This record gives sequence, structure tokens and C-alpha cells, in this order.
Amino acid sequence: MTVKSFHPPVRTLMGPGPSDVSPRVLGAMARPTLGHLDPMFVGMMDEVKAMLQYAFQTKNELTMAVSAPGSAGMETCFVNLVEPGDKVIVCQNGVFGGRMKENVERCGATAIMVMDDWGKPVDPNKVEAALKANPDAKVVAFVHAETSTGAQSDAQTLVKLAHDYGCLTIVDAVTSLAGTPLKVDEWEIDAIYSGTQKCLSCVPGISPVSFGERAIERIKNRKTPVQSWFMDMNLVMAYWGGAGKRAYHHTAAVNTLYALHESLVMLQEEGLENSWARHARNHQALKAGIEAMGLRFVVDEAYRLPQLNSVTIPEGVDEAAVRTALLNDYSLEIGAGLGALAGKIWRIGLMGFASNEKNVLNCLGALDAVLSGMNAQINSGVAVRAAKQAFAK
Amino acid sequence: MTVKSFHPPVRTLMGPGPSDVSPRVLGAMARPTLGHLDPMFVGMMDEVKAMLQYAFQTKNELTMAVSAPGSAGMETCFVNLVEPGDKVIVCQNGVFGGRMKENVERCGATAIMVMDDWGKPVDPNKVEAALKANPDAKVVAFVHAETSTGAQSDAQTLVKLAHDYGCLTIVDAVTSLAGTPLKVDEWEIDAIYSGTQKCLSCVPGISPVSFGERAIERIKNRKTPVQSWFMDMNLVMAYWGGAGKRAYHHTAAVNTLYALHESLVMLQEEGLENSWARHARNHQALKAGIEAMGLRFVVDEAYRLPQLNSVTIPEGVDEAAVRTALLNDYSLEIGAGLGALAGKIWRIGLMGFASNEKNVLNCLGALDAVLSGMNAQINSGVAVRAAKQAFAK
Repeated sequence: MTVKSFHPPVRTLMGPGPSDVSPRVLGAMARPTLGHLDPMFVGMMDEVKAMLQYAFQTKNELTMAVSAPGSAGMETCFVNLVEPGDKVIVCQNGVFGGRMKENVERCGATAIMVMDDWGKPVDPNKVEAALKANPDAKVVAFVHAETSTGAQSDAQTLVKLAHDYGCLTIVDAVTSLAGTPLKVDEWEIDAIYSGTQKCLSCVPGISPVSFGERAIERIKNRKTPVQSWFMDMNLVMAYWGGAGKRAYHHTAAVNTLYALHESLVMLQEEGLENSWARHARNHQALKAGIEAMGLRFVVDEAYRLPQLNSVTIPEGVDEAAVRTALLNDYSLEIGAGLGALAGKIWRIGLMGFASNEKNVLNCLGALDAVLSGMNAQINSGVAVRAAKQAFAK
Repeated sequence: MTVKSFHPPVRTLMGPGPSDVSPRVLGAMARPTLGHLDPMFVGMMDEVKAMLQYAFQTKNELTMAVSAPGSAGMETCFVNLVEPGDKVIVCQNGVFGGRMKENVERCGATAIMVMDDWGKPVDPNKVEAALKANPDAKVVAFVHAETSTGAQSDAQTLVKLAHDYGCLTIVDAVTSLAGTPLKVDEWEIDAIYSGTQKCLSCVPGISPVSFGERAIERIKNRKTPVQSWFMDMNLVMAYWGGAGKRAYHHTAAVNTLYALHESLVMLQEEGLENSWARHARNHQALKAGIEAMGLRFVVDEAYRLPQLNSVTIPEGVDEAAVRTALLNDYSLEIGAGLGALAGKIWRIGLMGFASNEKNVLNCLGALDAVLSGMNAQINSGVAVRAAKQAFAK
């Protein structure tokens, strides 16, 4: 065995994440590693915390990055807030609600499922019915932006409902953070997790989380220990926590935190509202092109995520062959459908750094060319111009 | 709030890890991000697996990197192999044996503790006594190389003992991998985890693990689900597993895996035995200097780790002030004592890329200068020459 250094091709990442990472962020990753207790590193962690508070729109003291991907961010919220025997209302309208159910059950708790169709938002009426039927429920969990479908749910309404019935809330914001409006304090979200590799356009591997006061109180008053040592916020708090000495818990992902720091500096430079507006604008142009081509969106405009576009596949087209052609001939990645939507849709991401005019036009041009080459039933040769006109508006 | 890009100082990392990262590895991290299901990325994962098999000296099919730090690698081993009600014999001779106990208890199992003094290896006689007294024990867990003390235990003997009494073994090799001989197959270790930021000299944030056939059989025949969704090897196997389609589980830490790949390419170029020999040689030179200075090692030579040197502090010296002076005036990080040894020792790492002649001489020179400046009771001005002479041998 003789393995050589790995030199990846340069892709355009327009799938469901990871999204394209800015050269500024990649450059930050390559800076010299510091010890995880080095005062310079600890100072940088404080800045990451402050900038995450800005991104989440929260003053929550316990705002930090878990040293593992978004699915561990999810698990961190559940293992800390759920105890054996608890009842948790889990809203499922895609893949990630199902993963929440797995988490609840592995905590020894019961998941009361509120099911909605894939591609639809969570229905607050069904949630209220579940709350009424389960007065002993402790937590309501839902996905703000379903990465598997591209549907957005009304987080503010769902959180208010949960609170009306005495429940805490766990919110999945993996795909929404920095892409669409998300206001943790104003909406009174209790616990939230996200990913770095979506609209923050940072590399994958760590997971921003934030816990409000009610959540911290719940964690501090648990009757049983948190089942995960690695994710136990009582311990993690001592490392990321406010003022005072940092206690060693685990070795932080030092260079990945440099990357997150840089991506948050970029978000701060652009401004959160401007980032939301940019994601909306690029979606409008992509939409103009996609619809001009004759393809349709899976999700209704009223609750469609601009950063994750689920698009139907033209009749008779081999969807995997299209993705392979885009990857091999255009070095362009778009996503397949997951779960109930596998084989039925493409997922085109316009996230973070990848959400720009050039990518919109490049993707439409490539998709048009590949589909035309397969004699698919589309309106050929009009998508790029339609998008360009939308940009000019 | 206006936060600027973070530009860390260049340190020399000679603490208990992270160790200095090669510019080659840092450069690899900054390469363009690929999607975690991109065929090019999957091919790179296969290479990482093959090179980890080499580093661990194993043919174990289930050899991979957990997308989180070493403490999550530890938890991955425990949550998969331990079920509620199990008895686990845990050997503790430092901090990390204590963390193993935490893991066992959070799995709902009972930890039978075998205690040895900090700085001593695990005593096989005590382990055998525990095995005899607990014929229903299912697992024996111990730390091969205790990062908190610098003591090495006889892994081969301990594994054989465990097997004689029908137990599986979980071995912590966070600090030993690539630094001292470690032979997973020859020693018949069942489950092992390590870190990237020690003798592999990669950035922190992921954790190499390997599971043998007996361990996999145990995992597949569990009566209860693994309590962690993120760490459930039944699910992770489908992503890292052998031939066939890769199933999406979580988003891998793409760029950190580039870094691990490059550090493993470097290990392969040097050769594993040469890496062990280099760690031993640099330790001998550091030892010559430390002893010439009049300082002592905490751990007996017979079971001392060359890559983690625990050194006593001269009478009357403020050990934290010394570390601060080394950091501020020499940009050199050495480690403090942990737990029972806090305030009593320094831990000088000579790990991976940081284990080189220049670092040995630089560290001795700086330590000599700082201690002399504090009028500490040492033999001044002789350490560097003694080390240089040791290198010349």
C-alpha cells in the first residue's frame, strides 16, 4: 500500500450541504494549531460565542459549538433535556423529525408523533391536539427548516403553543441558521442546534447550539445523569462557560473552530438581514429559471425555503444519471431525494457562500444542457436568460 | 461588536496534545470541501481506513474515524459494547480510567474498579483478582498510555487475561497510536479508540476507532438499542462500511479527514517502526537534558512513555508561572498536571511531528532559562549540551 496525498477536485456544492466554503474560511483552517487551553484560543472561543449569539439572535449565555456534526448537536439537545419516562411531542414532516424520534426513544422516553406530509410545514393545529391529549408532555421538538424537503415551519407559533401547554422546545435549525429569519430570543426557543456546513458555509464537523434559561434550569434539575458523558452540558459548560477558569473536558476541534470563527466574521461583515435577503434573491432567480424550464417546486411558495430547493424530476428521466453527469462533466453537486422523496426530487442548495448569481446561472445552464442532451421534456435554452432577467429586476 | 479574523500565534506544542501539526497537514485541511457522498471523497475514506489499519496493525474491517474527538471515540466503544446491567472491569491509574468509569455508569452498567497509583501501570494481578471475583464481568477496559501520567500498561498481557476469563476488551490508545508499539491484531484487542492530535500530529476533532470480530458480534447481538444515535456503530457501519452503497448517516468532518489522510500518508512514508524509534530517540535526549538539570521523571523507565514525559517540579517553584513564561516568552506550550497530579508535575509531550531534535533542544533551553531566572534549584546551563550529546550517540 502506497497512498499519495489527496487533492480533491474543485466542486460547486449545491446539494443539501456541505455548501461551498469560502477561501477565507479554508485559509483560516490552515492556521497553526493552538492548545485548547491556550489563552489566545480561549479568547477566540469567546468571540465565536458572541458571534453565534448574533447569528442565533440570542443573549443566551450557553451558546457554543459542540465538537461534532449537527446530528450530535441534535443528540446534545435531547440527551440533556429528556429523561427516561418523559413524553416528548415530536413533529415529523421529513427525515429529521424521524431522527428526533430515534433520539427520544434512545433516551428511554416516549415520542408522541405529530405527522405531516413531506414537503408540508408542521401543522400547529395537530400539535395543539397532541398537547391537549398529552398534558404530561415535557418537550415539543420540531425542525424549523426540513433539509430533506425544503419546507419551513412556523417556529414562533409552534414555540408559543408549546409554552402555552407548559412544554419546553427543541428546534432543529441546521439549514435555517443565517439563511432565513431565525430569532431565538424573540421566539423564545428553549434549545436549538444547527450545522456549520449549510448557510454559514463553514466546513462540516461542529454544531452550534444554544440553550435558554428554562432549558438550563431543566438540565440542572435532572433526576438522572445525562446518558452521554461527551454531550453532558453540565460538563461542557465548565469549558465553554462564562467567566472564570476553563476546565478541561475534551479537546476542542481547534482548527475547525478557526473556520467557524472566520465564517461568522464574514456573516457579521455582511449583516444577518443582508444574508437572509441574499438567500431570498438568489432563490427568486433560480425559481425563474427552473419554472421557465418547465420544472416544478415540491414545496408551496408560502413555506418554501430559499436555500433548499426541492424540484420535481421530468417524466422518464433517470435522476441519478443527471446528478452523475452534473458531477462528472460540470463538477457540480446537487442533492438526491431522501426517504419518502428518494428518486422523486432533486435538492438544489443555495446556501451561504454558494448562494450567488454565478452559481444560479451555472447550475441552470448545466441542468438545461444535461436534460436537453437526454431529450427530456423541458423547455430548453431559456432557463439562464430567465434567471438573468430575474436578477436584473 | 466587530470581530476581526483570528490569526493565532505560532506555538511549539509540547504539552499532552494537541501536538504541532505539520504544514503538510494544515495545507491538506485547506483543500476544497467535497460532499460527504462524493465518489472522490468516498475513495479518500477508503484510503484513510487502509492507513488506519496500518497504524493500528489490524485487518479489522470496522476501522474508521468517529466524527468527534477522542472522548467521543471512548464513548463510542462503551455505548456499543456495554448494555444496561452489565459488569465492566475498569482499570484506573490516571484521569482517563476515571472517565471510563463515567462512561460505564452512564450506560446503566456497573464498573468494577481496579485501582493503581497514578504514574504506575495497571497491575495484571489485580485485574486477575477482579476477574476471578466477578465471573459475570463482560468487558475489561484500560488505558494503554495514560496521558495524565505518562505510564504505559502491558496491553498484550491485560487482553490475554481478559480473554482467559471470557471478557472483551476496550483499550484507550489515544496517546500510544504511532508513538509506541501497538499491535491490535497480534494482541487481540477487541475495541480500541485513539485521537488524532497526539502522535499522529493531526488536528484535533476526530477519533480513530477499530472493532474486531468478537466486538462486532457483540454489537450485532445486543438486547437493547445503543443509547446514542450518533455513535451507534450499526448505523455508522453503513456509511464507513465495506463494499456497496454508502448510506447517509451524518455529515462527515470532510476537511478534518483530509488532514487525517495527510498525516497518515506521512506516517506511511516514515514507516510505523521508524516513528516508534524516533519517539524513543527524542525521549532519550530529553531525558538526558532533564536529568542533567537535576529534575526527575515521575514514571519508572520500565513503563515510561517516550511521547509523554511527566517531570517533577523543583522545590519552591511556581509551576504555573513557569508555564506562563514559556508560553509568553518562548511561545512554547508544555502541560500541567491533571487530577491527583495537578500542581505537582509538568507534562512535556514529544508527539508526532513535534517529536524532533529542534524541539527537544528548544524546550530544554527555554526551561533552563526560565528556571534559572527564578533562581530555582537546578543545574543551570548544562541541559541542552547533555541532550545534544545524547543525540550524537
